[in-house]
Amino acid sequence: MDKSNFTIAGNIVDVVAKRIYKGELEIREGKIASIKELEFAPDCYILPGLVDSHVHIESSLLIPSRFADLIVRKGTLGVVTDPHEIANVLGEIGIDFMINDARKTPLEIRFGVPSCVPATSFETSGFVLGPNKVESLLKREEVVCLAEVMDYPGVIRGDLDIMKKIVATKRLGKKVDGHAPGVNGEDLRKYVAAGISADHECSTLEEAINKIRLGMMIQIREGSAAKNFEALYSLIDTHPDRVMLCTDDTHPDDLFERGHIDHLIRRGLNKGCDIFNLLRAGSYNAIRHYGLDLGLLQLGDSGDFIVIDDLDSFQVQSSYMKGVCVYNNGEVLFDSHNEILLNNFYRKEIGLEDIQIKAKDCDVHVMAVNDGDLLTGWTQGRPKTEDGQFVSDIEQDLLKMVVMSRYNNDKPVVGFVKGFGFKRGAISGSVAHDSHNIIAVGTNDADILSALNKLIRMKGGMVASDSELSRFVKLDVAGLMSNKRGEDLLSDYKKLSDFTRGFGSSFHSPFMTLAFMSLLVIPKLKLSDKGLFDVEQFKLIDLYCE
Amino acid sequence: MDKSNFTIAGNIVDVVAKRIYKGELEIREGKIASIKELEFAPDCYILPGLVDSHVHIESSLLIPSRFADLIVRKGTLGVVTDPHEIANVLGEIGIDFMINDARKTPLEIRFGVPSCVPATSFETSGFVLGPNKVESLLKREEVVCLAEVMDYPGVIRGDLDIMKKIVATKRLGKKVDGHAPGVNGEDLRKYVAAGISADHECSTLEEAINKIRLGMMIQIREGSAAKNFEALYSLIDTHPDRVMLCTDDTHPDDLFERGHIDHLIRRGLNKGCDIFNLLRAGSYNAIRHYGLDLGLLQLGDSGDFIVIDDLDSFQVQSSYMKGVCVYNNGEVLFDSHNEILLNNFYRKEIGLEDIQIKAKDCDVHVMAVNDGDLLTGWTQGRPKTEDGQFVSDIEQDLLKMVVMSRYNNDKPVVGFVKGFGFKRGAISGSVAHDSHNIIAVGTNDADILSALNKLIRMKGGMVASDSELSRFVKLDVAGLMSNKRGEDLLSDYKKLSDFTRGFGSSFHSPFMTLAFMSLLVIPKLKLSDKGLFDVEQFKLIDLYCE
Repeated sequence: MDKSNFTIAGNIVDVVAKRIYKGELEIREGKIASIKELEFAPDCYILPGLVDSHVHIESSLLIPSRFADLIVRKGTLGVVTDPHEIANVLGEIGIDFMINDARKTPLEIRFGVPSCVPATSFETSGFVLGPNKVESLLKREEVVCLAEVMDYPGVIRGDLDIMKKIVATKRLGKKVDGHAPGVNGEDLRKYVAAGISADHECSTLEEAINKIRLGMMIQIREGSAAKNFEALYSLIDTHPDRVMLCTDDTHPDDLFERGHIDHLIRRGLNKGCDIFNLLRAGSYNAIRHYGLDLGLLQLGDSGDFIVIDDLDSFQVQSSYMKGVCVYNNGEVLFDSHNEILLNNFYRKEIGLEDIQIKAKDCDVHVMAVNDGDLLTGWTQGRPKTEDGQFVSDIEQDLLKMVVMSRYNNDKPVVGFVKGFGFKRGAISGSVAHDSHNIIAVGTNDADILSALNKLIRMKGGMVASDSELSRFVKLDVAGLMSNKRGEDLLSDYKKLSDFTRGFGSSFHSPFMTLAFMSLLVIPKLKLSDKGLFDVEQFKLIDLYCE
Repeated sequence: MDKSNFTIAGNIVDVVAKRIYKGELEIREGKIASIKELEFAPDCYILPGLVDSHVHIESSLLIPSRFADLIVRKGTLGVVTDPHEIANVLGEIGIDFMINDARKTPLEIRFGVPSCVPATSFETSGFVLGPNKVESLLKREEVVCLAEVMDYPGVIRGDLDIMKKIVATKRLGKKVDGHAPGVNGEDLRKYVAAGISADHECSTLEEAINKIRLGMMIQIREGSAAKNFEALYSLIDTHPDRVMLCTDDTHPDDLFERGHIDHLIRRGLNKGCDIFNLLRAGSYNAIRHYGLDLGLLQLGDSGDFIVIDDLDSFQVQSSYMKGVCVYNNGEVLFDSHNEILLNNFYRKEIGLEDIQIKAKDCDVHVMAVNDGDLLTGWTQGRPKTEDGQFVSDIEQDLLKMVVMSRYNNDKPVVGFVKGFGFKRGAISGSVAHDSHNIIAVGTNDADILSALNKLIRMKGGMVASDSELSRFVKLDVAGLMSNKRGEDLLSDYKKLSDFTRGFGSSFHSPFMTLAFMSLLVIPKLKLSDKGLFDVEQFKLIDLYCE
């Protein structure tokens, strides 16, 4: 018997016609061959698959096939992913890896081509994606858009390189995704006029409505880092055809414990959103906007759908793709192993002298961080002096931070940061947006050195070290992701988090905060492998306030 | 001072006008801005850069940038490479790696898109390159051709997949390279009529002339494996516009000790070939055929040339690309380090029971190999029996061979082979054409197991083991190539060769012979990870002659 020929009955949720009816779907050769309305049907609900309209899979610390293994349990059957992180590390090689790995799964995983690699010229990235490379990648069938055009000043000015990328995308009939936090007025008009049709960076209703009025689709984002659902959910009912849901960046613990798009659907239901509007935001609108190859439970559609117990609890029982059951009752029915190893990591182990910084009779510029905020403040301070060197001072919470290129062996750069609140130990990581160099912060040089060298020997991951122990998560793929199963990665990740909690920081996730300390496009003061960076003046500055 | 503005004088070898004259080249902004004839000039000779018109860089065991570091010393400034080996292991990811790595060098390294990945369906390859993927790769600017169309039966029959690849290539205005050993008559006519314009598989003059008469370019091949120079060199003077030189596969020891295209030029000079015809074969013709971006010492050309002491010894003093000296007197003036790690290797360690094979009261089919011959004979034999198992028998030179997939953990396949002549020990490798699975041969199960598990722990390379010791060459990149400098790789390779010599085989390179024992397209009997393969019947057969 052909497994793809069968019938399934339940309460069919038709998001196109906006109605729920008892019915039976007949699936033949992967498609919906007939739909029969019934008088009685099982209690379950049959819905279109959920869609995450903008996600960086790398943030889950899992490769695409392992990520798929996880989200299919949550009813997500389609994602539009921007492989921005691996593109900074490995260029087209990395993007090819992601596409190939995704292709091994039955899910509809489509790609955006990263539009801004590298983000700035004040950091060392592994690769550069110029207009020619971007155009060649845009032609790939797995690609549906140019991914978040972060260089909005460039678009507003009409810079040649970014405009070439946009024009190439439009010529190929694909979408251009935006990233324009707080942009409005004439600037926004120019940005939209360039052909950018979606944005996931709105943090207020007013901003979103301004963008909708100019014709944009708004992606309501709620991930582990940025959270805009609370501010924007009312758009789901006021502008049901103009919104999509997305997670942008989600960590593995949140994915496991909270869920994926299903979690946002549940939150929307709690808020009293209309179920059809919610499902339009979490499925239909993204399928239409990006032209995803996912059925919508209409006659002749591909047999892509999910089955849930009831609409209130919204717990996914099973998922189907092209008429094949790919998830059922806790069991994922496709194989997500991947044997490919891929990395770009050249740094050799360093010595204590490499992270020392001479004391001077003056203050230093200090980055100030708050939990859950990518923006850093800018202050000054006088670190403790030991043997003529500036070192971390726990009393003042003025800790040493070290950044160095993973792509070469240039001298590490040292800065100071306030806010982490560590009382002992040090942490390091190779997830450090956007170039993903090596970054560490700690309470003393010995632990910082230990955390860094452990990371270097592993060629990437996350490490916490104190004078006695090290805990780590190894990220073999590009120093960003693990080949492991989600459960196994999560177990490593939790051990690391628990161990790090003992260091005394009150931050929800010190590694996440650390990962954004090199992101040179978020004000005010950041540290790259080339030095301390004044974001507002967009230039490198000296550490000392002389 | 701009380093690219300078003059250089000597005996200028003009392969276009076929004359040698004393002259001075003025280089400005990378191009030849003027040429002055002189009455007196230094003794040296200035020539166009040499070109290898068909090479699998992987066979050098070096990544492209390291390979470039080596060949630039020999005066080769351009190559057309077919990344066939890495494509079998890593598909587009591998090809992107090769292109990106090559791009870091100043040399003109252009690519063919592998046309036949995998070679057969009777083996497990890492990737499949179908017509769509091939077409998308063909569009890349670094690509100049569809590489050796080995599936000549498919072309002659007009099979859809291979014809699609050929048509796409021609539509893009690129060349289609052939591989048609011994094909002639109507079959050859059909093959050439499909648009295939070059062939490097001729082993006789008659074959070459037949192909030339139909309009093909003949690539005279002389590498470490196949050697056709002796049979074909007379074409250089009889058909000076129809021949190119190539090496196809060259091992690192031969590259170091013998040379590259310069070695063939020296051999041609010894044979009395005309210097201009030789240089047309070793440079000009390939530049023209593939449209390589290499100058030919004409006014306005790019400043690409080499300088040699004298025409007889043909020793390269220095090499220039785009008017920049890239090699001078033993020193390579560009950086060839590469930090990217890339592999596709899933096999876990195995146990003794995995390589055992039950003895039966009958003979087994036996592969018979000769040194330096890719063709294997087919015989029968009765292996020694120990504890109810068939094992290697040194007396009869009937040795156990094991092949298993590197891409999965399916049960290893066991066969028997005659010819290696090992008296002790075992060798293993992950270079095993064309799918590059894991292969080993040895005199007893314990050593075979040791060589295999060492290889598996390294995730690829070459290993020789006896009861006491193991020697190895680690090939980190795809289990095919090393990131190391050529000299360092060569030193490892020689230690391995010396150690292996003690095992008693009279073969010039047992590892090279081993690497072709899984090549299912060369008669008569071969062993793949799926079983013993009858090449002429093109089917798997049972080991036992029951």
